[in-house]
Amino acid sequence: MGKNLTRKLLETHLVSGRLTPGEEIGIKIDHTLLQDATGTMAMLEFESLGLERVEVELAAQYVDHNLLQSDFRNADDHKYLQTVCARYGIHFSRPGNGISHQVHMERFGRPGLTMIGADSHTPGAAGVSMLAIGAGGLDVALAMAGRPYFFPCPKVLGVKVTGELPDWCSAKDVILEMLRRYDVKGCVGKVVEYYGPGVANLSATDRETIGNMGTELGATSSIFPSDERTREYLEAQGRGDAWQELAADPDCHYDEHAELDLSQIEPLIACPTSPGNVKRVAEVAGIRADQVIVGSSVNSSFRDLMVTAKIVENRHCHPDTAFHVNPGSRQVLENVAREGGVMSLLMAGARIHQSGCLGCIGMGQAPGTGQVSLRTFPRNFPGRSGTKDDQVYLCSPETAAVSALKGLITDPRDMGKEMDYPQIKDPDQYLVDESSIIFPSRELAKTEVVRGPNIMKLPEFDALPDTLEATVAIRVEDNLSTDGIMPAGSKILPLRSNIAAISEFVFHQVDPDFIERIKPIENAVVIGGDNYGQGSSREHAALAPRYLGVRAKIVKSFARIHKANLCNFGILPLVFKNPEDYALCEQGKQVVFPEVKKYLEDGATEIPVEVDGKEVITLLDVSERQREHLIAGGTLNFVKQELGTGEGAAENRS
Amino acid sequence: MGKNLTRKLLETHLVSGRLTPGEEIGIKIDHTLLQDATGTMAMLEFESLGLERVEVELAAQYVDHNLLQSDFRNADDHKYLQTVCARYGIHFSRPGNGISHQVHMERFGRPGLTMIGADSHTPGAAGVSMLAIGAGGLDVALAMAGRPYFFPCPKVLGVKVTGELPDWCSAKDVILEMLRRYDVKGCVGKVVEYYGPGVANLSATDRETIGNMGTELGATSSIFPSDERTREYLEAQGRGDAWQELAADPDCHYDEHAELDLSQIEPLIACPTSPGNVKRVAEVAGIRADQVIVGSSVNSSFRDLMVTAKIVENRHCHPDTAFHVNPGSRQVLENVAREGGVMSLLMAGARIHQSGCLGCIGMGQAPGTGQVSLRTFPRNFPGRSGTKDDQVYLCSPETAAVSALKGLITDPRDMGKEMDYPQIKDPDQYLVDESSIIFPSRELAKTEVVRGPNIMKLPEFDALPDTLEATVAIRVEDNLSTDGIMPAGSKILPLRSNIAAISEFVFHQVDPDFIERIKPIENAVVIGGDNYGQGSSREHAALAPRYLGVRAKIVKSFARIHKANLCNFGILPLVFKNPEDYALCEQGKQVVFPEVKKYLEDGATEIPVEVDGKEVITLLDVSERQREHLIAGGTLNFVKQELGTGEGAAENRS
Repeated sequence: MGKNLTRKLLETHLVSGRLTPGEEIGIKIDHTLLQDATGTMAMLEFESLGLERVEVELAAQYVDHNLLQSDFRNADDHKYLQTVCARYGIHFSRPGNGISHQVHMERFGRPGLTMIGADSHTPGAAGVSMLAIGAGGLDVALAMAGRPYFFPCPKVLGVKVTGELPDWCSAKDVILEMLRRYDVKGCVGKVVEYYGPGVANLSATDRETIGNMGTELGATSSIFPSDERTREYLEAQGRGDAWQELAADPDCHYDEHAELDLSQIEPLIACPTSPGNVKRVAEVAGIRADQVIVGSSVNSSFRDLMVTAKIVENRHCHPDTAFHVNPGSRQVLENVAREGGVMSLLMAGARIHQSGCLGCIGMGQAPGTGQVSLRTFPRNFPGRSGTKDDQVYLCSPETAAVSALKGLITDPRDMGKEMDYPQIKDPDQYLVDESSIIFPSRELAKTEVVRGPNIMKLPEFDALPDTLEATVAIRVEDNLSTDGIMPAGSKILPLRSNIAAISEFVFHQVDPDFIERIKPIENAVVIGGDNYGQGSSREHAALAPRYLGVRAKIVKSFARIHKANLCNFGILPLVFKNPEDYALCEQGKQVVFPEVKKYLEDGATEIPVEVDGKEVITLLDVSERQREHLIAGGTLNFVKQELGTGEGAAENRS
Repeated sequence: MGKNLTRKLLETHLVSGRLTPGEEIGIKIDHTLLQDATGTMAMLEFESLGLERVEVELAAQYVDHNLLQSDFRNADDHKYLQTVCARYGIHFSRPGNGISHQVHMERFGRPGLTMIGADSHTPGAAGVSMLAIGAGGLDVALAMAGRPYFFPCPKVLGVKVTGELPDWCSAKDVILEMLRRYDVKGCVGKVVEYYGPGVANLSATDRETIGNMGTELGATSSIFPSDERTREYLEAQGRGDAWQELAADPDCHYDEHAELDLSQIEPLIACPTSPGNVKRVAEVAGIRADQVIVGSSVNSSFRDLMVTAKIVENRHCHPDTAFHVNPGSRQVLENVAREGGVMSLLMAGARIHQSGCLGCIGMGQAPGTGQVSLRTFPRNFPGRSGTKDDQVYLCSPETAAVSALKGLITDPRDMGKEMDYPQIKDPDQYLVDESSIIFPSRELAKTEVVRGPNIMKLPEFDALPDTLEATVAIRVEDNLSTDGIMPAGSKILPLRSNIAAISEFVFHQVDPDFIERIKPIENAVVIGGDNYGQGSSREHAALAPRYLGVRAKIVKSFARIHKANLCNFGILPLVFKNPEDYALCEQGKQVVFPEVKKYLEDGATEIPVEVDGKEVITLLDVSERQREHLIAGGTLNFVKQELGTGEGAAENRS
């Protein structure tokens, strides 16, 4: 029996594990992708590994998120990223050059390669048949160090595509149809693999839209065959040599099956406040559209902007509708300008912005109170726009453009009475502009890394001592969330590249005196109740307490992700065998972990602890790998030891 | 003896007073200009007058400042402004259509008219020979109500212009030369009137640059003759009929004299941190330029962007320099696009933004720590960029463009080795685009005004009672600034259209309990020391306390502007005759002002007050007009009575 394309790509990259859905596998990563919102911490993590340069075929860093620059911090981040990329051999795409997904596909994407990116929409690289997966910053940092990426082997959902899209429908309607069927969790743990005769009717950038927004299905990734359409695109980008043909075997097995007849697609729209809340546009037509935005993470390609430009050409957006265009890349904007599209958009009243994510990640473009915003973006989670109780709808460029003209949500097919559907042909040869990408070179590797005052090196942490002597710095109640441990918000988030500064806010909501109390303590223990560390997955809720000297947490029970983060940063995640011992562990009590390192090395699951001389039994339930990471003082220390680049133990907090 | 042009325009608009420098005059206002940062409060003030529509020849409202839209507030302001303009007959220029000064000149400017604008750079309209003055929001609101504008009759500084600018020098270098000579206070109380044969060598948009940035000289305004260059510009804008010839009489008198030979101008640059800190570019050449921005309030015209585009054409900005372009208007961008300039700028690596003020008023584009930013803006006051300790230099587009290519501050004449100086000819016929301006109409006057939750009607205030009985709500020390009375900052500024909300922060820095204490008090008195109310001129430091019930302030001495604001909002500004009485007036004491209204009506300068039964004499030193305003309960009440639109007294705080 033949193999599906996902299986083929996994097999050629498999480093560890078996290709059995659900089992952990490790795969070799060919490309890595970072953007600036996640990139500074990931680069700090990479730097801490002590390597001389990246050890991956191609690493790229994009600046597309934090473009507003309200104070020095954004510009400092950009400078840090530019210099650290030069230093370590990473491609750097300058601010304003475009959105990571769009630019990576234009200039670097290659069929058959794997990529992880610290951005959930990384699977957009499906447009050129890469197996691309969104991951955490530390995962990407490790991949840049040449380490495999570990994740549960996915199931493969085969979607057989037939037919051709009707006029006034486009790729966005295809992925909205998938969301209508599967909703936002229907593809968790799966790769969505598109195949069949209809696939040839979707261009590379159409496929990017479908792969990118496939993330909203919960999918691990999406994949398309590499075919003539892929070749056309790569040749038009002047990179025809990157092409290779890739397809599933005709008799292959899929874990699950679906069929999609493009000719049956209608204009669809995701209503507030979920990408899965899909209706036919016709069902919601007539609702006032106060704001319309074309572009950003999806639907910001040449075709998407040109179809918009052609629809609004010699027309004007409704006087009550704010009409924005966010180009996906400098290259897109230049090609649209060459074809006259920029002038058409401007004359129609569009506010054309520099290339970037902008409103798609709530960086400006927030709608007003009670206003309806129609966007070609991938997401409309509540409040993501920056406005509470927002009403954001997601749709195709066709629906957006026609609605901008009418001032109302409008089925774009209605426009057929006024004009023929503008069929957009992608350029045979794109105007290629790589001038805003800084390619790594031997010369640039001598660049000195520039760190603004808000960008501090990642602190180094000790390995686990033989015996740990510590003090209870705080005891908290049941259900304390990561917000309670490490708050977020506009005051604290800008400190995320500065562990010393952000750590000043640890437990701030629970006990404002905590910081002053823990500072004189060398080694600290945190005592918690049930469901400790629930909520957001932020790794700072482990990293910042570790910086302050927290070496162990003993609780009644842990939330899953926080426990994993504790292992990553070398904090022992222990659970009371007898929950009543919680009462004993008051703030200020001395806690000794006799021969704790030996217990971990021996694989013990019970760790005895002395609290004021009285023995308390704690439980340690972690994997063999996590156990090794804890002994090393955290994942980064462990990897450093394996790479032979780090000391394992180190200077520690100042 | 003949008259200078300023005198002619003042004479034809004079409503009250004599044209003697320093004496208060009132002039008829033909046009008013508002932008969105000052416009919401000015429109609330106008609304409170109860008129049916504006009573000025042309009123215009621009949205150019708050374009970032980080939350609902900006978009709510835009919606409020659009609907309130429709309602009252005001031209509304939509967000993204451009900067007030640029758009007003393009579409509405007429030689010989007067204009006040709630923006200090309003004198840019000198480009089409308007006498245009920056003023406060309340001044503009009153002008929209058809009231004269009162200000001290200016002196006139006649600047005789000769010669022609050398290559690589432009209008920005001319105004920088003026700043080099006069610094930032050298023209206070003066109109700068340019005349002589060299004026014909400056285009309308060149003159806009000189008039706009003339504000930095401290000048009341600047003026140019209306000549062939003015006619050319208006005809190219399709508005040749707006032209009339205007010039000073050849034998006229000027209060002061200067000469300016354009042929002697060199490339100049204003160094950190004052527009008056002018040097030759050659003196500072070689300094690294981390950021270069062309455009915004000045130097954002067709010529300015085209000369930039031609200089960078087929070249690329330095990899270490962030290069931004902020077009002055949609029309500018469209004309530049038509000539191929947009493509040249994009290919050179420019980040082209929507039209608006942007970094010029600290709305984004903040430079990084220690970075040098080279801008064609009018101002570089410390921290205005959004970055503390910023290093902002002001220069011409020529200097900016060449420096962006080199990555260093560069004398643009050095570029003469590589290329001829690009002489830019303004279009014979601009591509005219008014489609983003909403013109008033009878139909639109029925528009319902939309007020987001942050936009509250201006509260109405009582007239002065016959006898005032009040309670001392707070007693403060010497030198309390308006920051101490009504703080600013990013948390409080967005509340400026919401007096109820902003008033919650009155005296917050001095006494956090003040708000809870004053709420149950019907009429309150504030007791202050010497130099009370120094610092920023913000009118909210009077308006918000008045909203809370403050009816009088008795202090040892007042700062000038705050005292005027108290009169505007109906708070009695009283001074202890015997400063030792300060000690008597403790917090919580009862204060009676017997027959206070009669004292004011009688023109008394001593007002007796009873504090706990003991008589204290206070002094009232105000003009006759201010006295009338105080009796009416504030300027707006007084004007309402004159207009016959208000009740004088009213509902008061809820």
